[in-house]
Amino acid sequence: MNAIAEFTIIPIGTGVSLAEYVAACQRVLEKTGLSYELHANGTNLEGEWDQVMHAIKSCHVKLHEMGVPRISTIIKIGTRTDREQTMAEKIAGVRAELEKG
Amino acid sequence: MNAIAEFTIIPIGTGVSLAEYVAACQRVLEKTGLSYELHANGTNLEGEWDQVMHAIKSCHVKLHEMGVPRISTIIKIGTRTDREQTMAEKIAGVRAELEKG
Amino acid sequence: MNAIAEFTIIPIGTGVSLAEYVAACQRVLEKTGLSYELHANGTNLEGEWDQVMHAIKSCHVKLHEMGVPRISTIIKIGTRTDREQTMAEKIAGVRAELEKG
Amino acid sequence: MNAIAEFTIIPIGTGVSLAEYVAACQRVLEKTGLSYELHANGTNLEGEWDQVMHAIKSCHVKLHEMGVPRISTIIKIGTRTDREQTMAEKIAGVRAELEKG
Repeated sequence: MNAIAEFTIIPIGTGVSLAEYVAACQRVLEKTGLSYELHANGTNLEGEWDQVMHAIKSCHVKLHEMGVPRISTIIKIGTRTDREQTMAEKIAGVRAELEKG
Repeated sequence: MNAIAEFTIIPIGTGVSLAEYVAACQRVLEKTGLSYELHANGTNLEGEWDQVMHAIKSCHVKLHEMGVPRISTIIKIGTRTDREQTMAEKIAGVRAELEKG
Repeated sequence: MNAIAEFTIIPIGTGVSLAEYVAACQRVLEKTGLSYELHANGTNLEGEWDQVMHAIKSCHVKLHEMGVPRISTIIKIGTRTDREQTMAEKIAGVRAELEKG
Repeated sequence: MNAIAEFTIIPIGTGVSLAEYVAACQRVLEKTGLSYELHANGTNLEGEWDQVMHAIKSCHVKLHEMGVPRISTIIKIGTRTDREQTMAEKIAGVRAELEKG
């Protein structure tokens, strides 16, 4: 089952700057081979459900290894059976609508 | 890695009433043996990360089998290494603070 | 426009225990007169859209006053025009489906 | 109080394709004068808390006017008092960490 997902990982009980942890998580994602993209409020990724979820779990494991005592993560995950769809196609669909005026 | 989670599963491309699908998902959870609790905006559950995520995936599978063409789910998942904590303890901790006045 | 909502407020850059802040937020909600209910992963509330959003904003203001330097909040908010619905009715609808067996 | 936010608006009880509604919402945002950016799983925006929330509410109003009977929206909203920060700076902070290697 293919999925388009997004997650935002929030370290708790650390300092106020989180960039170090977000970067560590990006490196974890890089190794998964999944397609992913950082944005201002999270990271989008797509792939087989289990691979996507394993990638997010790996980020939790990594951050705990870095000493983060508590993590709260928000995930959005979408699946569909009517047709296949990529993240790029979702964006393209909206842009096409916008061009209709 | 133990986790406290919540998910809200939103069927897309069906009718406006979703109770039937939420109920089907509750039955899926019943079979998992995990501790879970329905509330007005989602379902809380706790357990081993992989079991929790497998339960949510099983809800997607079930709803697609029921004919739902597209599903969008929001998950919150928390892990901590400083101590073990249950959902009941989270609530109790806040209640204890409230009683301090 | 009436809304059923949920929010989870996550203080960043503080200690690992958040119960103190969740309790402070409950006290803020108590003063709003809105119907609300704490659960293990957030707080449900219902009312006029603007009142709901003002209540959540007031929690941010309160926590910043308490010294929390950074806050990340997740809100779910639902509106519908087909009929009025309360949080209790959402739960009741699922329970009715479950009883159908 | 300045905020960095993200929202994902999910029409319920309509067809399986949502691009039309996402596009309508982008047009609503265009009129607000706020800085916003569509991504594969939502839209990021930033500005004064009340303006951000009013923009999201305006999307609900617009979609209901288009005939959507029910809408479920997920919002992430962050505020901080330690320093000002833009969406671009959040991304830049992570990129700087990644370049450290």
